[in-house]
Amino acid sequence: MTLEEKEGTRGSGPEALDSVGWTSAHTLRLVSADAPIELELGGRMGPIDVEYETYGELSPRKDNVVFIAHALSGDAHVAGWDKDTDKNGRVWRQRKPGWWDAVVGPGKAIDTNRYFVICPNVLGSCYGTTGPASIDPRTGRPYGLHFPMVTVGDWVKLHARLLDALGIARVHAVMGGSLGGQQALEMALAFPDRVERTVVLASSARLSAQGLAFNAVARYCILNDPNFAGGDYYGCEKNPDAGLAAARMLAHITYLSDEGMHEKFGRRLQRNTEQKAGFGIEFAVESYLDYQGRAFVERFDANSYLYVTRAMDYYDAAAAWGGGNLVEACRRVQANALVVSFNSDWLYPPGDCKDLALALARTGVRVTYAEVPSRFGHDSFLVETQKVGRLLRSFLAH
Amino acid sequence: MTLEEKEGTRGSGPEALDSVGWTSAHTLRLVSADAPIELELGGRMGPIDVEYETYGELSPRKDNVVFIAHALSGDAHVAGWDKDTDKNGRVWRQRKPGWWDAVVGPGKAIDTNRYFVICPNVLGSCYGTTGPASIDPRTGRPYGLHFPMVTVGDWVKLHARLLDALGIARVHAVMGGSLGGQQALEMALAFPDRVERTVVLASSARLSAQGLAFNAVARYCILNDPNFAGGDYYGCEKNPDAGLAAARMLAHITYLSDEGMHEKFGRRLQRNTEQKAGFGIEFAVESYLDYQGRAFVERFDANSYLYVTRAMDYYDAAAAWGGGNLVEACRRVQANALVVSFNSDWLYPPGDCKDLALALARTGVRVTYAEVPSRFGHDSFLVETQKVGRLLRSFLAH
Repeated sequence: MTLEEKEGTRGSGPEALDSVGWTSAHTLRLVSADAPIELELGGRMGPIDVEYETYGELSPRKDNVVFIAHALSGDAHVAGWDKDTDKNGRVWRQRKPGWWDAVVGPGKAIDTNRYFVICPNVLGSCYGTTGPASIDPRTGRPYGLHFPMVTVGDWVKLHARLLDALGIARVHAVMGGSLGGQQALEMALAFPDRVERTVVLASSARLSAQGLAFNAVARYCILNDPNFAGGDYYGCEKNPDAGLAAARMLAHITYLSDEGMHEKFGRRLQRNTEQKAGFGIEFAVESYLDYQGRAFVERFDANSYLYVTRAMDYYDAAAAWGGGNLVEACRRVQANALVVSFNSDWLYPPGDCKDLALALARTGVRVTYAEVPSRFGHDSFLVETQKVGRLLRSFLAH
Repeated sequence: MTLEEKEGTRGSGPEALDSVGWTSAHTLRLVSADAPIELELGGRMGPIDVEYETYGELSPRKDNVVFIAHALSGDAHVAGWDKDTDKNGRVWRQRKPGWWDAVVGPGKAIDTNRYFVICPNVLGSCYGTTGPASIDPRTGRPYGLHFPMVTVGDWVKLHARLLDALGIARVHAVMGGSLGGQQALEMALAFPDRVERTVVLASSARLSAQGLAFNAVARYCILNDPNFAGGDYYGCEKNPDAGLAAARMLAHITYLSDEGMHEKFGRRLQRNTEQKAGFGIEFAVESYLDYQGRAFVERFDANSYLYVTRAMDYYDAAAAWGGGNLVEACRRVQANALVVSFNSDWLYPPGDCKDLALALARTGVRVTYAEVPSRFGHDSFLVETQKVGRLLRSFLAH
């Protein structure tokens, strides 16, 4: 999601009646150093701290949980406003509404008067949950590239531990968009008896070859930034900002649609001059990408970008659970499912989302599939909050 | 075009009956130091040498000229085989067939028994025509970023000078794909009385916002490579190879279609292992991109990539000739036109190509428009040589 679009969904502030208000994150040590967990691709990991946010009240029967999984560059701050005193030095998070604030709150589609909402930061991220920037207890220094490879499966196992820690046996719903949608699918596959409803937005059972290609170029840019220093750049004067910015700029192209970019920028020049002077920023779309790149390096860690995109690459529900056959995999699912695609999304194109919905349907799962018309491309799941909200409200209620 | 695909179009060698055989380039000083040309975006330039290749024989009436314009990373070597002695040290060009060898040759769609084919390298390129790597006579050192900004319009003016130098008043046809298609259009606009037929393949009157965005990220990668050194890297131990490779990898994604990448690579792993070890090359599509990046830095100059992509950005036929109105611009055209799009091309999507064809048709130009079905994306104009060849053969004959 772009900051501009985040701002587009900003409500009237934390005092608004439909806002969850000021929020703060919680942290739990879900894995201790002396009882590490086995990771899917090998290796053991512990300790692991997980940072998460919650909104609303857990019902006495603990049956009103909506579990939200964030996307590639997202975080646990789904709704409400960060207190500007809780993260010193993290200017980017101060007084910002959550990334789905338009959808989550009192009376909103995910009604926090009714549901208890949980969203954790994933393992490997840079927002509080243990990640490459965390201190490796074996060395006393940040993990960097000594951090183990993590997968969507690992994340979901940790999410289950978080539910355990909160005493929650089953969730009313798990949901997410993009990489978050894959976590929602994976939870329904890995813990079928713990998931009543799963919502997969702008996502499918695996990333396309084209998606793999974009991620590969993004990582190439980071890995070849001389300031990357083999991932050991923490505390250095220079970080691999240029590589990370390039990765983000590239990713942003894939989040928008051609049509959306045409409407938003076209070939408009950034300034009201006709000067064509060289290789600086001249077109509005160049200015937009430049801003996105600059903003991202202020808030995201390059190593985390490597780990999280690789988890995105590796995720393949059919391979993991069905020997390569998606229908076989989906036989595990007990939840009702909502799969939502967006017609201008070309990162997770509607055809792939529909294939997932069809595979679920063939196994007898009750599936609702919707292809939402939108010009906003992959970003639609974040931007089309009214259309998505209506679908969510209805699906959660039944 | 990819090297693989180039190899896919390789005939049986220079001795084949339908090959133009061994080729060699010619160089002409088209602009002298004491009579520089005015460039469209300001500044004067001279001397300018233009390197070009020709195939076939110019007819006594000089009425059989097919002028071919190359694309972004292309060159004058359209057909036949480079002699492996003429470019010492340039391993990449040795014993390689031209980039359109399947289309140009004796008896082929562009029949060199009948037509005299000319293709020059564009101003700013790195293949013999004056470019950023050439010596700036004012300093005795390579131009680097002191090279002036060049445009498609400048190229076409130089192409016209080349025709003058060869004593050719009118061309039977001008043609090209992608950025070459824009040169073909521009020649019909700028020199309407010198062009009998124009062929625009996989190209349109201007690049889309999405296309601008991809070029912007590509240039960002080059400009932020520390070895770029402000463009003054010639003769240095290190060149901005990582930046240029990233730019090329990115561009390659835009040359293929999602469907084509799915068929060609899918999520196949490069090796027959299941090892998922980190951030190296694991998926076949990663190996492909890595190869493309490595091969490109051996044959292309980073500064040229900046200049040529910027010319691609700036080209806007409607703005240049019609005050922003494409139909007004097209009123200049006297040539018959063939516009060919490819249904899976998303860099110059069929809709934009069709808009050009419609604008031409509205002015009374005789236009043939064809949308060719193909899985090869933007690369189709290079790869679908049979389909394209049939269209060209027919159009050239009438």
